[in-house]
Amino acid sequence: PQTKLPKVGTTIFTVMSQLAAEHGAVNLGQGFPDFAVPDRLIEELDKAMRAGHNQYAAMTGVPALRQAIARKTERVYGHKPDADAEITVTSGATEAIFNAVAAVVRPGEEVVVLDPCYDSYEPAIDLAGARAVHVPLDPRTFAPDWAKVRAAIGPKTRMLMINSPHNPSGAMLSAADMEQIAALLRDTGIFLLSDEVYEHIVFDGARHESALRYPELRERAFVVSSFGKTYHCTGWKIGYCIAPPALSAEFRKVHQYNVFCTFNPAQHAFAAMLDAEPEHYERLGAFYQSKRDRFREQLASTRLTPLPVPGGYFQLVDYSAVSDLDDLAFCRWLTTEKGVAAIPLSPFYETPPAGQRLARLCFAKNEATLDAAIERLQKL
Amino acid sequence: PQTKLPKVGTTIFTVMSQLAAEHGAVNLGQGFPDFAVPDRLIEELDKAMRAGHNQYAAMTGVPALRQAIARKTERVYGHKPDADAEITVTSGATEAIFNAVAAVVRPGEEVVVLDPCYDSYEPAIDLAGARAVHVPLDPRTFAPDWAKVRAAIGPKTRMLMINSPHNPSGAMLSAADMEQIAALLRDTGIFLLSDEVYEHIVFDGARHESALRYPELRERAFVVSSFGKTYHCTGWKIGYCIAPPALSAEFRKVHQYNVFCTFNPAQHAFAAMLDAEPEHYERLGAFYQSKRDRFREQLASTRLTPLPVPGGYFQLVDYSAVSDLDDLAFCRWLTTEKGVAAIPLSPFYETPPAGQRLARLCFAKNEATLDAAIERLQKL
Ligand SMILES: CSCCC(=O)C(=O)O
Ligand SMILES: CSCCC(=O)C(=O)O
Repeated sequence: PQTKLPKVGTTIFTVMSQLAAEHGAVNLGQGFPDFAVPDRLIEELDKAMRAGHNQYAAMTGVPALRQAIARKTERVYGHKPDADAEITVTSGATEAIFNAVAAVVRPGEEVVVLDPCYDSYEPAIDLAGARAVHVPLDPRTFAPDWAKVRAAIGPKTRMLMINSPHNPSGAMLSAADMEQIAALLRDTGIFLLSDEVYEHIVFDGARHESALRYPELRERAFVVSSFGKTYHCTGWKIGYCIAPPALSAEFRKVHQYNVFCTFNPAQHAFAAMLDAEPEHYERLGAFYQSKRDRFREQLASTRLTPLPVPGGYFQLVDYSAVSDLDDLAFCRWLTTEKGVAAIPLSPFYETPPAGQRLARLCFAKNEATLDAAIERLQKL
Repeated sequence: PQTKLPKVGTTIFTVMSQLAAEHGAVNLGQGFPDFAVPDRLIEELDKAMRAGHNQYAAMTGVPALRQAIARKTERVYGHKPDADAEITVTSGATEAIFNAVAAVVRPGEEVVVLDPCYDSYEPAIDLAGARAVHVPLDPRTFAPDWAKVRAAIGPKTRMLMINSPHNPSGAMLSAADMEQIAALLRDTGIFLLSDEVYEHIVFDGARHESALRYPELRERAFVVSSFGKTYHCTGWKIGYCIAPPALSAEFRKVHQYNVFCTFNPAQHAFAAMLDAEPEHYERLGAFYQSKRDRFREQLASTRLTPLPVPGGYFQLVDYSAVSDLDDLAFCRWLTTEKGVAAIPLSPFYETPPAGQRLARLCFAKNEATLDAAIERLQKL
């Protein structure tokens, strides 16, 4: 059949993971931890299965989990969403992003995205019959230029998508950025999609500026998060969307007929974990900060230049001292010839900045894994 | 916001389950078993979690599971799909149906559905910007009239959706039906979506006519199934789609950016179960047939008239001897006043047949549950 998604190929994350496996490379590409999920989480999931929570969950999510998410949100961001009307549990943040776009974006409309951005955004927009309008972030600091965003907004704009901490760069939006967004969207019918999956992975005492902290933003926002990044279980695929009742109602119409509900026992397990061990997510920043700091120190012994990492679990490195290859070719070469898999940045762009020589390394790994990678990177 | 899905409300299954819970009714409404999943499945899931299968699965599904599905398909239907190019693991059959429609149906096109049909079909079609063309099945036997289907097919038709064993009626398509479909679709560009989630729940020695048995059908078909019905775990949400390579490629473009992958440990568990205990699905028909037979015998002591049940786990009953209410009102009354939740048929139709007095009862329940329901139904 003629394809409806002509631009879509196999995602770069799968491509690089396969290449890494074929060549026995240390995989710092696709973003996932190589350490264990918390024991307690496994115990709780076990308990839920054995207690018989194996049939359809409530379409919107297990009530205990939605309530635990509401309490956690209040605790962390000072705003308590309504567990019944405003929280929907999804099959990961990816489904939540897909649903939000499908629910409110119509054919012929436009969605403003900030490049580089996660590669699922544009296909979701395309399938809604809409068009992604790409606004570049600064190619070095990954800060948004709000004047450029304002210029990209027009009568067809239905949604703005933001992501902080940012994948791939780790850049974080500031309180001033959030005020700018509020000013931009004021008196428009434009929705905000705020992808906050790395919300708890922030460093150096910084504060994550969730859209939920800002009344003017949250009244028009789909705020998306995921337990995959917070609990080291990217393959469990449980995320959620927080949105005002009218938006949640539209979101749920799609969710109801897209997947209906998500793996029930894990929902019970996360409900128990959120309540029993808030320390887990409170300490996540410190946990990853020590990994980040150790990794950056090691990188100093290589010819790669690390960029700052305010949040998330990815380290961007400038490889221009090592190679003049473009980033796709460099990452392939690094994987196949040098035994370290990395992610190029160009798949995150509509138009990659000319001459950008950056690659993304995931440091959500055991020390042994990072040590093995560094040993290979030192030989560049 | 103005809604994109004006016809969508809360699904009847949720509505009736909530009503059942509020009124302490025996819930024979929403289709799910109230007995345990196989112990071995829980053990295998446990093993997979503890072995660390907690990060992203392959986007197309865990290879061992796709290979086990390929072998099972060959065993049961005499045709072995290619595990790499033709099988994709999804978050339940619902996601598979959603993806197939999103992948190949374009705005302005039409999809022919046979009423009554599962309530997710039409919203999936609507979200693709297409239109569902409803062809009624016989209101008593639920047999298709292929001349009517032929008349409904036109230049805009992109897909035909079938479902056997059929929800809500349990009716099954015959080999002759499959030949009719092949003739109808021959030399057209029309795809077939075959929803076969009750494939292993067939009675009285009947043979399930999977579209996979028919070369002319499977070359244009998305065949959808689910482990939820086969392994008594509707809340685990693991299903799959079998389609030829070119169709699977389009399907995967949507899946990749809709949910990406599904709960990894369960995929490993199903891979182990399919290989280790083929008896499980081979004996599923007999397991449910004894439930069906016992339940029908008990129904003879009530004023409800049971219709034949060739497959699936639902019993349709004609309640016209009891009440002249329409089916929505009857099912509400039965739930709130008589303590047994049932599903009306009209939500499965665009235009419900005038005067149809049928309700759907799920017999995928423990004997004690069915006994309690019968005791109440005897009082009608
Ligand atoms: C779904 S694979 C991509 C994982 C991820 O979030 C990343 O590597 O950026
Ligand atoms: C997703 S709730 C509906 C379950 C079901 O398949 C049915 O009751 O028909």
